[in-house]
Amino acid sequence: MKTKDRRPRLAVGLISGTSMDGIDAALVRLSGSADQPRVRLLVFDTLPYLREVKEWLMGVAAGELTSAGGVSRLNFLLGELFANAALGVCRDAHVSPRSVSVIGSHGQTVFHQGRLELIPGHSEAAAPSTLQIAEPAVIAERTGAPVVADFRTADMAAGGQGAPLVPMVDYLLLRDARKGTVALNIGGIANVTVIPAKAKPPDVTGFDTGPGNMVSDALVRHFTGGREHYDAGGRAAARGRVNEAVLAELLRHPFFSGAPPKSAGREQFGRYFVESYFLSRRRARFEDMLRTSLELTARTIVDALARYVFPETRVDRLIVSGGGAHNRTLLKRLAELLPRLTVELSDQYGLPVDAKEAIAFAILADRTLHGLPGNLPRVTGARRGVVLGKIARP
Amino acid sequence: MKTKDRRPRLAVGLISGTSMDGIDAALVRLSGSADQPRVRLLVFDTLPYLREVKEWLMGVAAGELTSAGGVSRLNFLLGELFANAALGVCRDAHVSPRSVSVIGSHGQTVFHQGRLELIPGHSEAAAPSTLQIAEPAVIAERTGAPVVADFRTADMAAGGQGAPLVPMVDYLLLRDARKGTVALNIGGIANVTVIPAKAKPPDVTGFDTGPGNMVSDALVRHFTGGREHYDAGGRAAARGRVNEAVLAELLRHPFFSGAPPKSAGREQFGRYFVESYFLSRRRARFEDMLRTSLELTARTIVDALARYVFPETRVDRLIVSGGGAHNRTLLKRLAELLPRLTVELSDQYGLPVDAKEAIAFAILADRTLHGLPGNLPRVTGARRGVVLGKIARP
Repeated sequence: MKTKDRRPRLAVGLISGTSMDGIDAALVRLSGSADQPRVRLLVFDTLPYLREVKEWLMGVAAGELTSAGGVSRLNFLLGELFANAALGVCRDAHVSPRSVSVIGSHGQTVFHQGRLELIPGHSEAAAPSTLQIAEPAVIAERTGAPVVADFRTADMAAGGQGAPLVPMVDYLLLRDARKGTVALNIGGIANVTVIPAKAKPPDVTGFDTGPGNMVSDALVRHFTGGREHYDAGGRAAARGRVNEAVLAELLRHPFFSGAPPKSAGREQFGRYFVESYFLSRRRARFEDMLRTSLELTARTIVDALARYVFPETRVDRLIVSGGGAHNRTLLKRLAELLPRLTVELSDQYGLPVDAKEAIAFAILADRTLHGLPGNLPRVTGARRGVVLGKIARP
Repeated sequence: MKTKDRRPRLAVGLISGTSMDGIDAALVRLSGSADQPRVRLLVFDTLPYLREVKEWLMGVAAGELTSAGGVSRLNFLLGELFANAALGVCRDAHVSPRSVSVIGSHGQTVFHQGRLELIPGHSEAAAPSTLQIAEPAVIAERTGAPVVADFRTADMAAGGQGAPLVPMVDYLLLRDARKGTVALNIGGIANVTVIPAKAKPPDVTGFDTGPGNMVSDALVRHFTGGREHYDAGGRAAARGRVNEAVLAELLRHPFFSGAPPKSAGREQFGRYFVESYFLSRRRARFEDMLRTSLELTARTIVDALARYVFPETRVDRLIVSGGGAHNRTLLKRLAELLPRLTVELSDQYGLPVDAKEAIAFAILADRTLHGLPGNLPRVTGARRGVVLGKIARP
């Protein structure tokens, strides 16, 4: 396929994130060249995992013992489920899956180690590696469309951390000739893509700022005995007050003072973090803890921008996406703390906040099919831009 | 790339088999179209695994407990080793790896289940799946050449058993307008590809006949206390006598009377088989056991041909490859039992017996890059011919 091909084409993006709630699927119409695409979302849907599958996955991703056969079976099973998610959005749009030019499947991450790491009890450091599953050959066979999958391995083979990859799509869709832009995604972890006005790919940077919803979600699950999974709209947090003593302590966590590039995960802000900073307090009010956790997210985002971005880059607007974009209390706090910036949702740019990541992998797959690099070396740390993923043909 | 492209091109094939001794690498020059290739072997070499790696792999492939992280790390580690094997044959040929048009990497199988199977203790049957590792993105990055890998998944997604795949290459390189041909590969397991005179792809069949070297190798390891791994040239077997009582018992094993398509592995002819039929005998002479095991291989090959091939297909010649082709005693027996056939080594057709499998994956990768199917549906049981593997670009 030629890079300069500008014909409109259908593409599907598939991803299941670390929360493992289910498979996000976006069917989009792309137009323009693969290097300057325009995108229109046709259908977005989430196919939830059955409880048994989610539990199996959660266990394997948490490092529970399994076998090569277990990983193999899970890979093929998820291939069927990801295929169903793709077929579902095609059906909803009354589109034949065979007319889809490419399916970009991120798959499900069951292991990711971005850099050399010491393993407790071992004398040698473990080399970086990553493992996403959901067999692409199964998706290709069931849909009749070419599938691009395994987006993170090529970047890591080129010395990168294999993440984050969405900044390339932020650059493609949100850059502006006159306005400096920060794209903020608030998932379990919050991360920013910094796109100066008139940026070229090498000007784009990006890093994780710390917890997004991960800590708040854990608190909600804890205090509701697992009945609820997140603070809808930030309403519970809005009723609470910030515990300044706890916040001050939280802000001293070494992750926040480290210079970018940096990336975070459950290793830093998972169960241990929540237990030691929040659940160990006596007489802690639920709403106050939630409000404090929300303040941590807002403050660490703003602090990171103030320290590492604003000194070098003029920023005019903050474009928010991810599940945290539904949290009005959080958005209000961000707007208060960043009075000189326009705070908007990515919806206004054709990227509904929940669908943005799935859309991103449709666009990255389109790039791969056209032989274009999908990573940003300054963001991932790779030696160079590389074509991401592997292509499976139906 | 166009199917009709006939320019000479370099390709590399990489495979490590179930014996896990090391990585076979073949550098070949292909000419003619991808659908009617001619092949010339330039360099063949085997890069042995270090003992630690072999032990780790053997454990994982035997179903020992591991984690997603363990599989991920092993996948990336083998990616480096497979890349080294490819770089090695290029260096030996004084060829830049970047001038290689494609590397076909079979990877290392750590799990393969070709059909629906009941799992002891589970009420539901396990769906078929397969897992080959040796990260292709790492091979592509280190060599600068496009890599095709994961050859078995697409066939399985299309309902096939994902094996055997070499018969397509047997068809491409060994077919003849006037002679009916059986290509016999004697690895751990022995298998045949049946290519009638003037065959088209749908006329080709193939199946496993039973143990190749697997039983003999196990006997040698047992009787030498692990100092030797195989009976070089079949010399020890040549000194022994067939134990007719044991042989008669062996031939009653249900695998041999089953009609093809059928495939065998360690499940049937591994440790348990060797112990119960051979090692349980008192006063069994080593050479007699070896000779009996060799006779089992020869007889089951010939019986299978007599029952399932000769009634339907005129066969003029038997072309032997695989490690067992070095066993002169075995070859002599085959020639005696098949007096009407010409028995030859694949070397005479430009396919040295040890290099044939690695060469096969170079040719299959060339087909994939040209969009041609690589499986034979009558051989694997797939619903249709499919393009095998996934393409990773450097």
